[in-house]
Amino acid sequence: MGKVRLEAFSDGVLAIIITIMVLGLRVPHGEKLSALSPLLPVFLSYVLSFVYIGIYWNNHHHLMYTVKKVGGGILWANLHLLFWLSLFPFATGWMGENHFSPLPTALYGSVLLMAALAWLFLQHSIIVSHGEGSLLAQAIGGDLKGKSSLLFYAAAIPIAFFHPWISQILFVFVALLWLIPDRRIERLVAERRF
Amino acid sequence: MGKVRLEAFSDGVLAIIITIMVLGLRVPHGEKLSALSPLLPVFLSYVLSFVYIGIYWNNHHHLMYTVKKVGGGILWANLHLLFWLSLFPFATGWMGENHFSPLPTALYGSVLLMAALAWLFLQHSIIVSHGEGSLLAQAIGGDLKGKSSLLFYAAAIPIAFFHPWISQILFVFVALLWLIPDRRIERLVAERRF
Amino acid sequence: MGKVRLEAFSDGVLAIIITIMVLGLRVPHGEKLSALSPLLPVFLSYVLSFVYIGIYWNNHHHLMYTVKKVGGGILWANLHLLFWLSLFPFATGWMGENHFSPLPTALYGSVLLMAALAWLFLQHSIIVSHGEGSLLAQAIGGDLKGKSSLLFYAAAIPIAFFHPWISQILFVFVALLWLIPDRRIERLVAERRF
Amino acid sequence: MGKVRLEAFSDGVLAIIITIMVLGLRVPHGEKLSALSPLLPVFLSYVLSFVYIGIYWNNHHHLMYTVKKVGGGILWANLHLLFWLSLFPFATGWMGENHFSPLPTALYGSVLLMAALAWLFLQHSIIVSHGEGSLLAQAIGGDLKGKSSLLFYAAAIPIAFFHPWISQILFVFVALLWLIPDRRIERLVAERRF
Repeated sequence: MGKVRLEAFSDGVLAIIITIMVLGLRVPHGEKLSALSPLLPVFLSYVLSFVYIGIYWNNHHHLMYTVKKVGGGILWANLHLLFWLSLFPFATGWMGENHFSPLPTALYGSVLLMAALAWLFLQHSIIVSHGEGSLLAQAIGGDLKGKSSLLFYAAAIPIAFFHPWISQILFVFVALLWLIPDRRIERLVAERRF
Repeated sequence: MGKVRLEAFSDGVLAIIITIMVLGLRVPHGEKLSALSPLLPVFLSYVLSFVYIGIYWNNHHHLMYTVKKVGGGILWANLHLLFWLSLFPFATGWMGENHFSPLPTALYGSVLLMAALAWLFLQHSIIVSHGEGSLLAQAIGGDLKGKSSLLFYAAAIPIAFFHPWISQILFVFVALLWLIPDRRIERLVAERRF
Repeated sequence: MGKVRLEAFSDGVLAIIITIMVLGLRVPHGEKLSALSPLLPVFLSYVLSFVYIGIYWNNHHHLMYTVKKVGGGILWANLHLLFWLSLFPFATGWMGENHFSPLPTALYGSVLLMAALAWLFLQHSIIVSHGEGSLLAQAIGGDLKGKSSLLFYAAAIPIAFFHPWISQILFVFVALLWLIPDRRIERLVAERRF
Repeated sequence: MGKVRLEAFSDGVLAIIITIMVLGLRVPHGEKLSALSPLLPVFLSYVLSFVYIGIYWNNHHHLMYTVKKVGGGILWANLHLLFWLSLFPFATGWMGENHFSPLPTALYGSVLLMAALAWLFLQHSIIVSHGEGSLLAQAIGGDLKGKSSLLFYAAAIPIAFFHPWISQILFVFVALLWLIPDRRIERLVAERRF
């Protein structure tokens, strides 16, 4: 019942976040290439964040497939996730405008870390309300990918103050890790003929 | 019939309000911590408003569950509520940029008060069109929580001119009051096996 | 089939238009009442446009109820309507910031006129594709309200250059005319037991 | 199953892109015609982009009709398309503010080209996952229109540096080509009684 609205609202917020980020690419005043070139780091940070929001949308899609009932706990765990994702446009813009310098890179990593924690918390809320024998509980298992992402983000934050480009490489690496779609749920669904 | 579109439109407006508020967090020009720190009050007011819009979305979700038919009265009572909620980004930004000073705090309280009145009016419209014996009429009963919220908001407005921080505490207190999900409808639904 | 996506897309665009208009209320820099007062005309024009977009959403809702099949003609007639409605935030902002002066008032009237023409064109496209005996054709009849609105908007444009406040009164008057929901379709639906 | 959310998310993003572009029409400070006239090229570029996004939405609508199952490949091919479309507000604003000068025109053509390539890639992903005998594979056939659009965009990019107005004519010409709705799918659907 409530699942449809939860998905619709989340889709709405994610669609707005992904599109509003492009407003960070402010239209420059000149018409020369020199007017465009300062926007390159903003553009690159936009691409990275677009991919991350795409990953979250894609995985949210899979996650919600396993949800049978929506209570207050799941609703607020979902809003908590959307809160951290809503900070992407700010963190992306600040990092891009400052050419991936230390503090903005560390802040971007912190937003990624908080969103990843919010994601684990949402997963946890769903498992608690659906039982340990539920589809999701079996599908994620030890959830190596989710937990190792946390470690990479957590590592990228202090590293940003010394070698911010290593942090960027970590952000790209984790994104690539997730671009491989989460076949765990798909596989179990296929096996069980859900 | 029309209920699906009413929910979809309301979800859309609420999703945009909650996401557009973050544009109030304007990307600062420096890359140091000193560039970020003036944004702290804006960020705190954003968190408060995010929670309030989340509460309204959550309760709207419950409220619409009780609606069986949508006429012009409910449509306009709903748009009236969305109007006051659409002023949140403005009131939030003004309060945050002025570090919770008296007049912006009083304005924020006024927007909260008007939204709460619009909410009661929407509830009333639903009860009028569905009858006193309807699910919603029984669920809300005397509606102590809704009416006491009004009192707190109304008190916070004059207090803001003397001790704006007391008003802020009242805003946070009422938000916490509502974070506890409205189990009244859920309970009645469960009892009646709807 | 395609009707659901047409409604969803239109709801999305209308929800964004109605919410984006509030960005015209730019957060002022001072914290005094004197910082707020220049925003009053912007706020009043926002209220007027909010009501107009609400009326269009409400009537769109009724109009789509009569649609059984969606072809290319209806799709583009609908996008044409959304185009003119998308100019509301611009026309509203310009009129509000210039305190309802002649040219901005005339432009606002022109956008209202073009949107009203686009509405009649959408109605016409639906009747053409559904036949003269269709529900909509019977419901609108001579469509006195739609056509008289056109006259009022058309009159308000030249009047704006001499007495812009008369144009404003006309805008408010037509809005009030439409706030009374379009019972013609509702009545016919009830009679026919659709 | 997942198709509904894919459509809803795409509709959301397209609705936001089409509406956010109008923010490029910044409210001018004067109230005279002279304040409005510099906005004319921005307005014209907005009209062109509105039509293009409308075409993409319309065709997306037809394309999704042929989709029976949604896997990771289609999800990401769709997000890839949305990425290039999300650059429309930026490319539109830059082209309009610089009065259709060479480099902005070439950039606009490049965004059109990349979006068209992303569209072909999405079509390809759907055919791969549904088989060569699928509805879509038969409907598009050699896809003369899709492929010739690519050629026109590709030609418009270098031409922009010498005669940008020829590029604009090409953009308008291709838009008109697509305004004629894609009857190929509609015809096949009608024949097969899908």
